[in-house]
Amino acid sequence: MRIVIAPDSFKESLTALEVAQAIKIGFQKILPHAEYVLVPMADGGEGTVQSLVDATQGEIINTEVIAPLGNLIQAFFGLSGDKQTAIIEMAAASGLHLVPVEQRNPLKTTSFGTGQLIKAALDLGVKKIILGIGGSATNDAGVGMLQALGALFLDQHQQPIGFGGEQLQDIMHVDLSQLDPRLSSVELEVACDVNNPLCGPRGASAIFGPQKGASVEMVEKLDNALLHFSHVVEQQYQRNIRDHAGAGAAGGMGGGLLLLPNVSLKAGVEIVIKAVKLDTLVANADLVITGEGRMDSQTAQGKTPSGVAKTAKQFQKPVLAIVGSLKEDYEVIYQAGIDAVFPIIRQVESLEATLKCGRENLISAAQNIARFYLLAKHIPD
Amino acid sequence: MRIVIAPDSFKESLTALEVAQAIKIGFQKILPHAEYVLVPMADGGEGTVQSLVDATQGEIINTEVIAPLGNLIQAFFGLSGDKQTAIIEMAAASGLHLVPVEQRNPLKTTSFGTGQLIKAALDLGVKKIILGIGGSATNDAGVGMLQALGALFLDQHQQPIGFGGEQLQDIMHVDLSQLDPRLSSVELEVACDVNNPLCGPRGASAIFGPQKGASVEMVEKLDNALLHFSHVVEQQYQRNIRDHAGAGAAGGMGGGLLLLPNVSLKAGVEIVIKAVKLDTLVANADLVITGEGRMDSQTAQGKTPSGVAKTAKQFQKPVLAIVGSLKEDYEVIYQAGIDAVFPIIRQVESLEATLKCGRENLISAAQNIARFYLLAKHIPD
Repeated sequence: MRIVIAPDSFKESLTALEVAQAIKIGFQKILPHAEYVLVPMADGGEGTVQSLVDATQGEIINTEVIAPLGNLIQAFFGLSGDKQTAIIEMAAASGLHLVPVEQRNPLKTTSFGTGQLIKAALDLGVKKIILGIGGSATNDAGVGMLQALGALFLDQHQQPIGFGGEQLQDIMHVDLSQLDPRLSSVELEVACDVNNPLCGPRGASAIFGPQKGASVEMVEKLDNALLHFSHVVEQQYQRNIRDHAGAGAAGGMGGGLLLLPNVSLKAGVEIVIKAVKLDTLVANADLVITGEGRMDSQTAQGKTPSGVAKTAKQFQKPVLAIVGSLKEDYEVIYQAGIDAVFPIIRQVESLEATLKCGRENLISAAQNIARFYLLAKHIPD
Repeated sequence: MRIVIAPDSFKESLTALEVAQAIKIGFQKILPHAEYVLVPMADGGEGTVQSLVDATQGEIINTEVIAPLGNLIQAFFGLSGDKQTAIIEMAAASGLHLVPVEQRNPLKTTSFGTGQLIKAALDLGVKKIILGIGGSATNDAGVGMLQALGALFLDQHQQPIGFGGEQLQDIMHVDLSQLDPRLSSVELEVACDVNNPLCGPRGASAIFGPQKGASVEMVEKLDNALLHFSHVVEQQYQRNIRDHAGAGAAGGMGGGLLLLPNVSLKAGVEIVIKAVKLDTLVANADLVITGEGRMDSQTAQGKTPSGVAKTAKQFQKPVLAIVGSLKEDYEVIYQAGIDAVFPIIRQVESLEATLKCGRENLISAAQNIARFYLLAKHIPD
């Protein structure tokens, strides 16, 4: 019997690898002779670097970059075990959590640090970069990121503009000729799970600006700046980045990335599924187990377990989910291909205490699922 | 497929029947054609009356009795559907919860009300009385209960003694000749899950007195009174009730009950198992499901799920438990015959909120267990 264990991380409790290991421990107590294949998964969000590093026996690279407000910080990215792929989370360099709450202001924040991480990955000679763009503090259409990679954004005095979303209003000329030439020989896969356009009422500023600290006035200013930037780009390069689905992701980062060569915006979990070759792993599995910290109706909208289930169902494999918690509205996950789901909480305790016993709860749940599995097989129809 | 669902109640959340019904609802969504046999269970403790009334389609009888401190209260007992068996919880008439915390004093509290419930059951012409003696406020060796049934306890002036554990010290003469004659033709099964003797360091006063409000001095006084009483009984009736296992249960109620005819002290769950004829129900079951509000290592010590499992294992039936919560030390339940256990909590919430969604959590857990059951049957070994 071959069991593929492909969970996401349990946020604030366990990495995806730790989740997979705990499930294996529980199952192994009852089914010691089964074959277990552990596949730490992710959906492009927080934990994607760790999961793909773990999945490929790669490593974490630490490097100094410019934080959203211009100060220097230590950031990180992942390098796959075969050193062919870099995995970057934008939030590591340009994340909202890097900006103190009282200083959150997307007029000022830059995505420059994310560009530096891409550059550091290029320095390592990778062939592919996977970039997750969730959790950013910025609304600068990725202009900072492009600056770090050599692009020039000049104002009416032919001077480079500064950092921050408000500076885009001053751009008169875009010059991409100095972009790092190594970008042309690298595939850049961007994990992007929203389809918002760059501007307007569904655009980056209106939808994601407020959670980054933008007031109503700032949202309007930012939206105008993005619109202006898109017009300059369109005039110079005959490219409409305004209406591309996902251009509005991460404060317009989705749009800015479209100015790089070999870029594709994809669902995060699909990128990870491809990176870990999940299809070949589940093709000859007898049971596929996935999971995540908190399962709800959103899970069916492209989160890790639904991606895993979709892949498993291409091969008609049974799919079981083991989860930290389970919201009332979870039942749509059955349509997403998850056949059964078990939450692991064993006692009424504080969130902190519950997060602490995640590993023990997982082992216990897995053990009992395996026990019931053996029972069920011997119950007559 | 025939599924016997025989859980205890989930205290403060659902009766045993409600638990069984919720489990059935969840299973039925997936296995609509299975046969479900619902058996509300109990172990002689709180909820035993409700479970046995539900299990036999009986009724609850309300009646006025004397509370532990002498005031009148409404109490209740159960009458089985065939009207042959009464089910009494001592706590309904003589329970600790009936005495305000600041008035708890086992020198004063009487078990008289429990005797009145027995009398009320005799009035209905039952052939058998099941009496659960948990949760009492008393330490009077059941003397109050015996008084209500006609026994006389006289002091040196040939006057009847009053209520309360301290009065036993004054007993010079016991007269059982006036005991209700109907007791001779009724079987009295006492659910008793402790084996403490009447007196001494493991006796009723020392072990259970403090939780009923007894100070160190009171415990000594009470223990001496029980010892004195047992000596009077021994002198007059040549019966040693001191050392009988269980004589110390419920403030010596176990000992006092031994003065009645046709009395047996048994494990509570065994009495219930016999009353609901669980053995014939599980004999041709394909799966037995039990459960309780909180499962821990104590469960293996004669609580409902271990009793159900023991009965099921006499017929080699698979046993699954579905529980409200599951303490770290639960794994001994596997040796008690429970093959697998699933806790139902789905989210980190307050105890109050968790108790409120017990039914929904049960249905959800049962549904997913049934879903996994179907999966498991089709996974190759």
